[in-house]
Amino acid sequence: MELLEICKNAKEIVGKIGILDTNTKNDVLHRVADALIANADYILQENEKDLENGKNNHMPEGLLDRLALSKKRIDDMAEGLRQVASLDDPIGAVSSMKKRPNGLMIGKKIVPLGVIGIIYEARPNVTADAFALCFKTGNVVILKGGSDAISSNKAIVSVIQNALKEAGIPQNAVALIEDTSRETAAQFMKMNEYVDVLIPRGGAGLIRAVVNQATIPVIETGTGNCHIFVDESADFDMAINIVVNAKTQRIGVCNACESLLVHENIVDTFMPKLMMRLQEKNVELRADGAALEAAMAGNGVRKDLIKPADEEDWGTEYLDYIISAKTVSSVEEAIVHINRYNTGHSESIVTSNYMNAERFLNEVDAAAVYVNASTRFTDGFEFGFGAEIGISTQKLHARGPMGLEALTSTKYIIYGSGQVRP
Amino acid sequence: MELLEICKNAKEIVGKIGILDTNTKNDVLHRVADALIANADYILQENEKDLENGKNNHMPEGLLDRLALSKKRIDDMAEGLRQVASLDDPIGAVSSMKKRPNGLMIGKKIVPLGVIGIIYEARPNVTADAFALCFKTGNVVILKGGSDAISSNKAIVSVIQNALKEAGIPQNAVALIEDTSRETAAQFMKMNEYVDVLIPRGGAGLIRAVVNQATIPVIETGTGNCHIFVDESADFDMAINIVVNAKTQRIGVCNACESLLVHENIVDTFMPKLMMRLQEKNVELRADGAALEAAMAGNGVRKDLIKPADEEDWGTEYLDYIISAKTVSSVEEAIVHINRYNTGHSESIVTSNYMNAERFLNEVDAAAVYVNASTRFTDGFEFGFGAEIGISTQKLHARGPMGLEALTSTKYIIYGSGQVRP
Repeated sequence: MELLEICKNAKEIVGKIGILDTNTKNDVLHRVADALIANADYILQENEKDLENGKNNHMPEGLLDRLALSKKRIDDMAEGLRQVASLDDPIGAVSSMKKRPNGLMIGKKIVPLGVIGIIYEARPNVTADAFALCFKTGNVVILKGGSDAISSNKAIVSVIQNALKEAGIPQNAVALIEDTSRETAAQFMKMNEYVDVLIPRGGAGLIRAVVNQATIPVIETGTGNCHIFVDESADFDMAINIVVNAKTQRIGVCNACESLLVHENIVDTFMPKLMMRLQEKNVELRADGAALEAAMAGNGVRKDLIKPADEEDWGTEYLDYIISAKTVSSVEEAIVHINRYNTGHSESIVTSNYMNAERFLNEVDAAAVYVNASTRFTDGFEFGFGAEIGISTQKLHARGPMGLEALTSTKYIIYGSGQVRP
Repeated sequence: MELLEICKNAKEIVGKIGILDTNTKNDVLHRVADALIANADYILQENEKDLENGKNNHMPEGLLDRLALSKKRIDDMAEGLRQVASLDDPIGAVSSMKKRPNGLMIGKKIVPLGVIGIIYEARPNVTADAFALCFKTGNVVILKGGSDAISSNKAIVSVIQNALKEAGIPQNAVALIEDTSRETAAQFMKMNEYVDVLIPRGGAGLIRAVVNQATIPVIETGTGNCHIFVDESADFDMAINIVVNAKTQRIGVCNACESLLVHENIVDTFMPKLMMRLQEKNVELRADGAALEAAMAGNGVRKDLIKPADEEDWGTEYLDYIISAKTVSSVEEAIVHINRYNTGHSESIVTSNYMNAERFLNEVDAAAVYVNASTRFTDGFEFGFGAEIGISTQKLHARGPMGLEALTSTKYIIYGSGQVRP
């Protein structure tokens, strides 16, 4: 199908998908899960084409791994669909219903957003995942995946569409834009008449491109230059555990810690202890003057892992075994530094000081602000929302982990008895 | 100040404005109200320059009237500020605080959006109004008004800034972009690094221009092609009162009714009665086949006011004493027509049929959907929110009348005791 046809089609059926009841939607999600497993061989065979292409094009190992499917990964996809089926359906709830002085009853009802566009890279698991979250919330989803995964995506979408058709649901509740050219992507991002919101899922480059080109409203997700500030009153063991966890528990994720701020009054004693633990995981430290000296002065530290930081380090999301460190003289200086260099994702203070904890919570501008905990908890499951479509780093509509509610809008419903405005 | 300097300045002080307590903010709003009244002569004298320019440039009467200030209008501005002071401050409330299984306490706190850009036309009253709503919610506001009102806007902003300064508040909590060129406006709309959201206030052309040019997230407001569907079971007197009210109570507003849908089973009896009432206000009717014939056949109707409708009428927001009318065979046809031609603002059904009422409420896609009431109620005051910054016709972030809450975001605050992610 042509892009315009896909978009028109989506808009045409959006009303039908939006009014499906929860039982029907859950039943469909289970049927799709079954269909993915039943068609695993077909999906793997199509995935193989993408992998071969990738190898021929010298795709890096990490990307090939993300692209590769297996029976296990298809089982996980199916399990993801069943988990979404088990979540509460937010659609249809009326969050307040009040009687106005003129007798009008005004309520605010949760409704689907409508047509959601997801633009993503070569991760075929996003295909099933995005469908599940959008469908559960009564939305129609149009997927624009990367060219590297096109055969896998076509296979997965055709399996989902067949399952929808068999269940008597319009199969275009999910559609894939098969033309992966940049021109088509650019056109898609301007389809305001048909598409209500765009959600890019991928690296910083992809997100920037969507923000710059789209005229459709965009929800920005995912880049994280996260800091931990170790205050002078911090418990050292707690601080070291938190920094090591936030840096190394999983390095390639947006809520990993990339930068450390240390209070000047403890820098000499804290840095050598921290360094001993970081070097167990071969973490490179890029530090400013006092932090650099302190780390270097430690007994047994690996000096080859300690390097001077420059200005550029403060703004860098490494997604690697590297952490920057800066010495600050106060919680105030830490807050100013964070508000200047962060990406609005997750920030943490380790402290025993009540005033500093509250000040940090109040004044740091980010989606999630922690006291005495690892930044790695910013995640839909950890927050208790279940599956998430991404982590919003902007302030409009949704901020932080986006569960099902982030895929909804509201409308006012008004019950009258002939009221006119005086 | 240069545009970039204004934006940088705003970003620099945004933290300070965001943490002001409610008492301080209310006190400042009252001081600004006093200052506007005390400086009324100066503001009127500057407004006179704009009015003279307007007359020399043959500005239409309606626009000149919107541009003109008077002692009374300045009193109204001040009164508006005091009303905003009297509203509840949403900032700082924690909407939920839950303990996760690992002991983390996670709460969702209401925070300011940050820096808000308002782009508007030659209405100097918006200047004080936008400042009040943004300031009350702890936001910094950058105003970009039309060139026709530049002297008035400069005067009003300087009075506000002086009052802020005297109160010990950073005076750039409100800033005006004095360069009213299109190039500067276009640059402003791409200042993502400094500005969190843009809210255009004005006609459809202005809003379209902002949506197309901005890379900053935009909240669309204000265009309304509102419908009333008169079902076959409608009480005729009620339906006529509602249509006449929604069309004529105030014609230039976005929640006025522009288009009527009438069930075919009552079109013959209803249209002549309606036309008798519409013609009292000289409303022109543009109707399709059956509705046209029915209206024409009425005893005593003014046939000069009755014209055939064409396709273009269904999509037109007249903002005038004109209404289109179409005959439909069912509530379903009415819903399909509305979802095709409406602008997502306000839609109403007049009916005595329970199933049709509920179906209309469920399936019409708009910010406000009414049963048996005039569309003219879609308004912040009528909904009980107090002053509003506009009426959102998009689905993201805020939909319908936008009171103070629409100018806020949230952040997650997390209290830990050393938790790390396993």
